[in-house]
Amino acid sequence: MNTFGNKFRVSIFGESHGPVIGVTVDGVLPGIPLSVEDFTKDLSRRKAGALGTTPRTEADTPEILSGVYEGHTTGAPLTMIFRNENTRSEDYEGFKENPRPGHADFTAKYKFGGYNDPRGGGHFSGRLTLGIVAAGVIAKKMMYFAKFNAALKEVGGITDPEKWPDALKAAAADGDSLGGVVECVVGGLPIGLGEPFWDSVESVLAHAVFAIPGVRGIEFGDGFAASRMRGSEHIDLFPEHKCCHGEHEEGHHCHHEDGQEHECCHGKGGCHKAPQPPVTNHAGGVNGGITNGNPLVFRVAFKPTASIAKAGVGGRHDVCFALRTPVIVEAVAAIGLVDLAL
Amino acid sequence: MNTFGNKFRVSIFGESHGPVIGVTVDGVLPGIPLSVEDFTKDLSRRKAGALGTTPRTEADTPEILSGVYEGHTTGAPLTMIFRNENTRSEDYEGFKENPRPGHADFTAKYKFGGYNDPRGGGHFSGRLTLGIVAAGVIAKKMMYFAKFNAALKEVGGITDPEKWPDALKAAAADGDSLGGVVECVVGGLPIGLGEPFWDSVESVLAHAVFAIPGVRGIEFGDGFAASRMRGSEHIDLFPEHKCCHGEHEEGHHCHHEDGQEHECCHGKGGCHKAPQPPVTNHAGGVNGGITNGNPLVFRVAFKPTASIAKAGVGGRHDVCFALRTPVIVEAVAAIGLVDLAL
Amino acid sequence: MNTFGNKFRVSIFGESHGPVIGVTVDGVLPGIPLSVEDFTKDLSRRKAGALGTTPRTEADTPEILSGVYEGHTTGAPLTMIFRNENTRSEDYEGFKENPRPGHADFTAKYKFGGYNDPRGGGHFSGRLTLGIVAAGVIAKKMMYFAKFNAALKEVGGITDPEKWPDALKAAAADGDSLGGVVECVVGGLPIGLGEPFWDSVESVLAHAVFAIPGVRGIEFGDGFAASRMRGSEHIDLFPEHKCCHGEHEEGHHCHHEDGQEHECCHGKGGCHKAPQPPVTNHAGGVNGGITNGNPLVFRVAFKPTASIAKAGVGGRHDVCFALRTPVIVEAVAAIGLVDLAL
Amino acid sequence: MNTFGNKFRVSIFGESHGPVIGVTVDGVLPGIPLSVEDFTKDLSRRKAGALGTTPRTEADTPEILSGVYEGHTTGAPLTMIFRNENTRSEDYEGFKENPRPGHADFTAKYKFGGYNDPRGGGHFSGRLTLGIVAAGVIAKKMMYFAKFNAALKEVGGITDPEKWPDALKAAAADGDSLGGVVECVVGGLPIGLGEPFWDSVESVLAHAVFAIPGVRGIEFGDGFAASRMRGSEHIDLFPEHKCCHGEHEEGHHCHHEDGQEHECCHGKGGCHKAPQPPVTNHAGGVNGGITNGNPLVFRVAFKPTASIAKAGVGGRHDVCFALRTPVIVEAVAAIGLVDLAL
Repeated sequence: MNTFGNKFRVSIFGESHGPVIGVTVDGVLPGIPLSVEDFTKDLSRRKAGALGTTPRTEADTPEILSGVYEGHTTGAPLTMIFRNENTRSEDYEGFKENPRPGHADFTAKYKFGGYNDPRGGGHFSGRLTLGIVAAGVIAKKMMYFAKFNAALKEVGGITDPEKWPDALKAAAADGDSLGGVVECVVGGLPIGLGEPFWDSVESVLAHAVFAIPGVRGIEFGDGFAASRMRGSEHIDLFPEHKCCHGEHEEGHHCHHEDGQEHECCHGKGGCHKAPQPPVTNHAGGVNGGITNGNPLVFRVAFKPTASIAKAGVGGRHDVCFALRTPVIVEAVAAIGLVDLAL
Repeated sequence: MNTFGNKFRVSIFGESHGPVIGVTVDGVLPGIPLSVEDFTKDLSRRKAGALGTTPRTEADTPEILSGVYEGHTTGAPLTMIFRNENTRSEDYEGFKENPRPGHADFTAKYKFGGYNDPRGGGHFSGRLTLGIVAAGVIAKKMMYFAKFNAALKEVGGITDPEKWPDALKAAAADGDSLGGVVECVVGGLPIGLGEPFWDSVESVLAHAVFAIPGVRGIEFGDGFAASRMRGSEHIDLFPEHKCCHGEHEEGHHCHHEDGQEHECCHGKGGCHKAPQPPVTNHAGGVNGGITNGNPLVFRVAFKPTASIAKAGVGGRHDVCFALRTPVIVEAVAAIGLVDLAL
Repeated sequence: MNTFGNKFRVSIFGESHGPVIGVTVDGVLPGIPLSVEDFTKDLSRRKAGALGTTPRTEADTPEILSGVYEGHTTGAPLTMIFRNENTRSEDYEGFKENPRPGHADFTAKYKFGGYNDPRGGGHFSGRLTLGIVAAGVIAKKMMYFAKFNAALKEVGGITDPEKWPDALKAAAADGDSLGGVVECVVGGLPIGLGEPFWDSVESVLAHAVFAIPGVRGIEFGDGFAASRMRGSEHIDLFPEHKCCHGEHEEGHHCHHEDGQEHECCHGKGGCHKAPQPPVTNHAGGVNGGITNGNPLVFRVAFKPTASIAKAGVGGRHDVCFALRTPVIVEAVAAIGLVDLAL
Repeated sequence: MNTFGNKFRVSIFGESHGPVIGVTVDGVLPGIPLSVEDFTKDLSRRKAGALGTTPRTEADTPEILSGVYEGHTTGAPLTMIFRNENTRSEDYEGFKENPRPGHADFTAKYKFGGYNDPRGGGHFSGRLTLGIVAAGVIAKKMMYFAKFNAALKEVGGITDPEKWPDALKAAAADGDSLGGVVECVVGGLPIGLGEPFWDSVESVLAHAVFAIPGVRGIEFGDGFAASRMRGSEHIDLFPEHKCCHGEHEEGHHCHHEDGQEHECCHGKGGCHKAPQPPVTNHAGGVNGGITNGNPLVFRVAFKPTASIAKAGVGGRHDVCFALRTPVIVEAVAAIGLVDLAL
């Protein structure tokens, strides 16, 4: 089923070389100002054209079919489509007979009895992430209090961005490709998002992230490195408070370091007016599957592009499609979090 | 919502120091032979008692309340409970006022307005995984054709099991704790499990795996290492077939290397009667989110135990709770896969 | 799948002659005072013992297994069980070979390949409604602002309650049975419950009501009679307001009949501060699938008891099980409405 | 949420006077031949133009955006849109200020904070049923073994169709409107559709039917009349079989009346090789919420059109919109049943 979410539902449809790629978002709050211009920035971050990306470029202008009236969302389902224009289906002929390695051609043909649209990966194409980015724009608007920031941290294992252009050119010259790692930080989240048993924040975000084609792993906070730490290195302690320890008379008002006033706790420990998240963030902003008020931090590993000349796959492809994914990671994070927040 | 799955639904209830831990499994096929003895092996793999685990031990005998009649599943919801007996709630007093670092105490209190049961982590306790293991036993029975095998691969970053006892003793002596990495391999899966856009095999399994308390990361196949490989290193090629290339007359029957007979493909490439998965398995058994017939392979990173004497947390705790998790990882894998298979 | 609801989820388990009947309610708000005594009144309304009901009586005392701590709901899943005690399974032997007419014996055996528990209808027994009534008590507590009132309006087509005892005795003497009609009125609902397209209030309530064994029909407001009315008879007009028609100067304050003050509307019609529901209630409190502020009104038709001596069915049965259903109808109404309200 | 179904999911989008009405169907089996011509017959049954229907007519040609490749369904989500052309939004000005009685104008405005599209009822318009009829065509193709037949049985309480034209003309002359009753019969269903507790066949169909604007009631089999029958009148007995009562020797083969041969049952009653549904059909084809092999029979009550000149509502409206609903009732029946069948 091509739908994600319970209260904020994102449904994807379309094929890479069909008439359109589309998305329906249900559960949008009414009254949000929305126009096609609102999608420009995020959609352009996903676009090809830069070094290391495919020369297939598309206008990718969204067409809003429903759910918006007089410049505001109505609360009814919001459907957007993107016309496919720059298609060269002839590049993809023969994929049913000879499935491309590292792609869904083989499994899709098997699963759908050979009736799947094979052109450009059909419904399995990375182009479907257009709809995800568009839905992410709406999700971010609904999560106006949060700040989403995903960025590429590694290309082909290299962490210094100055060295990426050379690596990309070298891989391209060899008819080969590179992978990458994206880190996403979400600030401004309220304490309390996520559900015990089964719908932890990590569960919901990992579910959404692995829907992006080419993801091989996800980790939160210290991630895999945490498994190699001792508990005392990994643990996030809560802020110490200078408790008055009941030194005062009944009714006395004490002051926190932050200047807030509170009644003397009389040694009961309840000094803080507002709950305070831990002072370090090894956990990546989550305790027991629920946001703790610290920034949410996770990293996503993308494989190298599967379509490589070296393996005999023609067509126009990214040398490193991970370059185009940070905005997609932000989008799925926003989609997953808004669903938990509603 | 404390439920996982669509067609095979696992619902968890209970608290660590309440009367019971329980689970309801809906969508069980009728006619499966089932008795309490069937749970013994997997439940004992989860039990404490060995070096590096907590001295709190429980009988953990399942009581079947519904869904079984005359020794077979009926197809109606199957509910099992486990009585909590060896509880020492006095160890946990004061956790509401002073939440334990690295636990859900802080976020649970906030989320449930202070009404959550704080004793032993309440509904957030790792003890809830009892129900998951029990549901996993049923899921494995329904996936009788598959072979689930999860094992601990690292303890505190050490890959040689002979060195683990010393590391565990050293950590315990310091009032500290260790993490670990579990690898799970599932063989015998049919081609075709998983759904395009949103419910990929990786999405569903990652969702289930992150429900296990203490997970920090998950990776499939080459995982994070894939992001540092070139495409030509990571790609899984399909088996070459000795195609007859249309050298024969109409109606001629050729032979595969495996002895199977087929009509001459006349150079169209369709020589294989049955689809053949790739010859290498860097992808971990999944293409485009769908199983490709190779073994499914993933790794899970567990953090070090949060409750450490060094951080001032009393009670009885595992030095390395990852030791008890392989059977839980198998269980969630079985639960996720049977839901996709139905 | 034996679960109803999205945000307030009620899952039923158990068999009529198994160890227990049970229910798990997920999505309960934390902090609601709850004890076993809270269930007494509604459970006793469902009990047998009165004229026209079965002599099989059970204590039906709920045992709360989870989700309650120190007398309040915790927000974690709340599981309750009821022990089955007064069972006479020997009455039900041979039902697999010779399914009872008008019961689920035949279809259940077919659907579950003969593995269903046949004793007393097993999982299909009306006894399962115990769990529904218990869940309804919790739902009503969460809908404290609403007033649920279901009552029997017809027995065997007779609307005068004084004549029911004679009709029941006559049917019993003939080894026969009677049906009935229950009307449910829910007052105090806010405007706005229900969703366009697919999850209208009527859709959700009808879904829940038809889960009660023996329901043959449901109608809202004027119901089937509406199809025989003219539009002018059925329509619910909005209250006329004495609009000042802009007779006053800018800034002038007018007064509603109810004494509320508002700025002069200057003939624009927006005189009412708060939206006013229609003055008549032919629609039964719903417009376009959404509650309009009027009392919700619906009627449910129950068939006559299927187990009749006249058809050769032994055992202990109600002459008219509809007598015991008003509290069940209230329960499913509360369950459906709280799910829409959350 | 504007989606119905679990395994066959129908999502509706669009507004009456927006650019399009649309529907996405997920869960379509791959390999079904499908073209726009396949929709012509059912869409034309829903069209206006006949006596008693609105003069607003639309081409209503479906445009398939995804999910079909080379004339067959692919298994990917299938999205169809219908352009809105013959709109006269000026007829609907002022509906926000002065909501039409008997419509969703009032509740929609309240629920969506005034941001809903009010033109022609917006997303609440009966025009949205276009998408339902289209989805129904696909559902019927997947249920090729079943026969759906819905027909109008009453108009304004009149059962003789010859008298309907006069009644419609009379109501129109008075600026008034009429309701109606539709009966739907589904033959050829397998035994076993429907689920115990909560997702009975009646629950699922009633849920879907009450999504159609203007429905006031639904009843199955004898329906409300059943509540006025005695059990002995309403009960559906199973076919008697001429059991040989063990009169024969071990190994003897007996013959059913239908000519089928079976081993002598030796008085155990298991004479029938195949299960036989009841001989009468007062239950309407369902026992215990599960289809029993008899035709499924239900009736739906439609209210009279709310937009009447007599109540001061202008625009172009049906005198009796029930005239256009039989194909919609068939569609929701097919949608609900295919979801249960998958």
